[in-house]
Amino acid sequence: MGEEVILLDFWPSMFGMRLRIALAEKGVKHERKEEDLLIGKSPLLLQLNPVHKKIPVLVHNGKPINESMIAVQYIDEVWNEKSPSLLPSDPYQRAQARFWADFIDKKLYDECRKIYTTKEAEIGEETYKGFLEIIKVLEAEVGEKSYFGGDTFGFVDVALIPFYSWFYALEMLGKFNIETECPKLIAWAKRCMERESVSKSLPDRHKIYDFITLQLRKALGVDQ
Amino acid sequence: MGEEVILLDFWPSMFGMRLRIALAEKGVKHERKEEDLLIGKSPLLLQLNPVHKKIPVLVHNGKPINESMIAVQYIDEVWNEKSPSLLPSDPYQRAQARFWADFIDKKLYDECRKIYTTKEAEIGEETYKGFLEIIKVLEAEVGEKSYFGGDTFGFVDVALIPFYSWFYALEMLGKFNIETECPKLIAWAKRCMERESVSKSLPDRHKIYDFITLQLRKALGVDQ
Repeated sequence: MGEEVILLDFWPSMFGMRLRIALAEKGVKHERKEEDLLIGKSPLLLQLNPVHKKIPVLVHNGKPINESMIAVQYIDEVWNEKSPSLLPSDPYQRAQARFWADFIDKKLYDECRKIYTTKEAEIGEETYKGFLEIIKVLEAEVGEKSYFGGDTFGFVDVALIPFYSWFYALEMLGKFNIETECPKLIAWAKRCMERESVSKSLPDRHKIYDFITLQLRKALGVDQ
Repeated sequence: MGEEVILLDFWPSMFGMRLRIALAEKGVKHERKEEDLLIGKSPLLLQLNPVHKKIPVLVHNGKPINESMIAVQYIDEVWNEKSPSLLPSDPYQRAQARFWADFIDKKLYDECRKIYTTKEAEIGEETYKGFLEIIKVLEAEVGEKSYFGGDTFGFVDVALIPFYSWFYALEMLGKFNIETECPKLIAWAKRCMERESVSKSLPDRHKIYDFITLQLRKALGVDQ
């Protein structure tokens, strides 16, 4: 079957990384098109995601799939014979996986954003407290398990692990140490990083730090 | 099979209505427990949804499922032999359905909330404009179709139709008429209301109006 798979992506995007991981897990060959969102949005992006105008966009045989975890589910469903499913087969476990991915989307991103959009001198206890509260919930949820779903790498791991590539920059900006507070979460992250699908999909943490401090914060007007 | 299905609900909740509709569509017998959120949250609710502390909660044989559209998917998957599936069988159509349900959750609720949490004298063009922008996207999406997915009532319809029960109150508060701007959306809503699963799950619009003006706005400190 002649298949065309294109990924509209932006390299530091946590949401783009999710699709890179899912495609790697399933061994789906694809073409990656880089969008530099600090410069602007391409006509192709605006055409393929007219509602949200955001990356990532997965384009499968010309049809766009938007919203990262919806695209991860799509990848999991379409290429379901190539590797174990990312979502559990049991409906209750599947609902739980969807719940935690949704929790990450609703809660974690905003708390990360608060840190990197605050001037360094103003990042206080409160900023860290909000972030810490969320990652402590995740720390408790992963507990002693290998992965969020249990023994195998799955849906919630794909949803969360990209944030790990931003943790170093957040720690540097906020002068805190995540591992001290959430050792199980960091142990989980290191386990995930041993997978080639993950390590090849996440940029180097120093590169993310440079992106945030040298480009993103300037573009957002946080730093002059 | 001895099954126990409990729905923790609050009668004016759009999110609770979604589960009522899905359970009715599938003919799932259940016990409904009313939570009066204006008074407080029961120990049972806090125990079953410790993360978000929100209704609705679906409890199936003692196990809680939180977040309304995740619970709707669960209902669709578990009782999948009782009626046609709410989600399409084609992965791309399924991704599209999830996209639109997600759009409603991310965009529509906030715009509705802006209207009913604004003092009546201060509800201006801007408040209505934001709301109108979102429902016009939905108007364009439903277009000439019978339902959002095509010919059959499905996932996006379940996600959206509960908002219709709040439209009358929003129109009264904002002094606007939705049908003038979005005739196709209102025609769709009226079609949905012809289904017993919907009409029996949605409270009367005047009752919602009374709830918002006599109770909710007072509780939120909008009106004295």
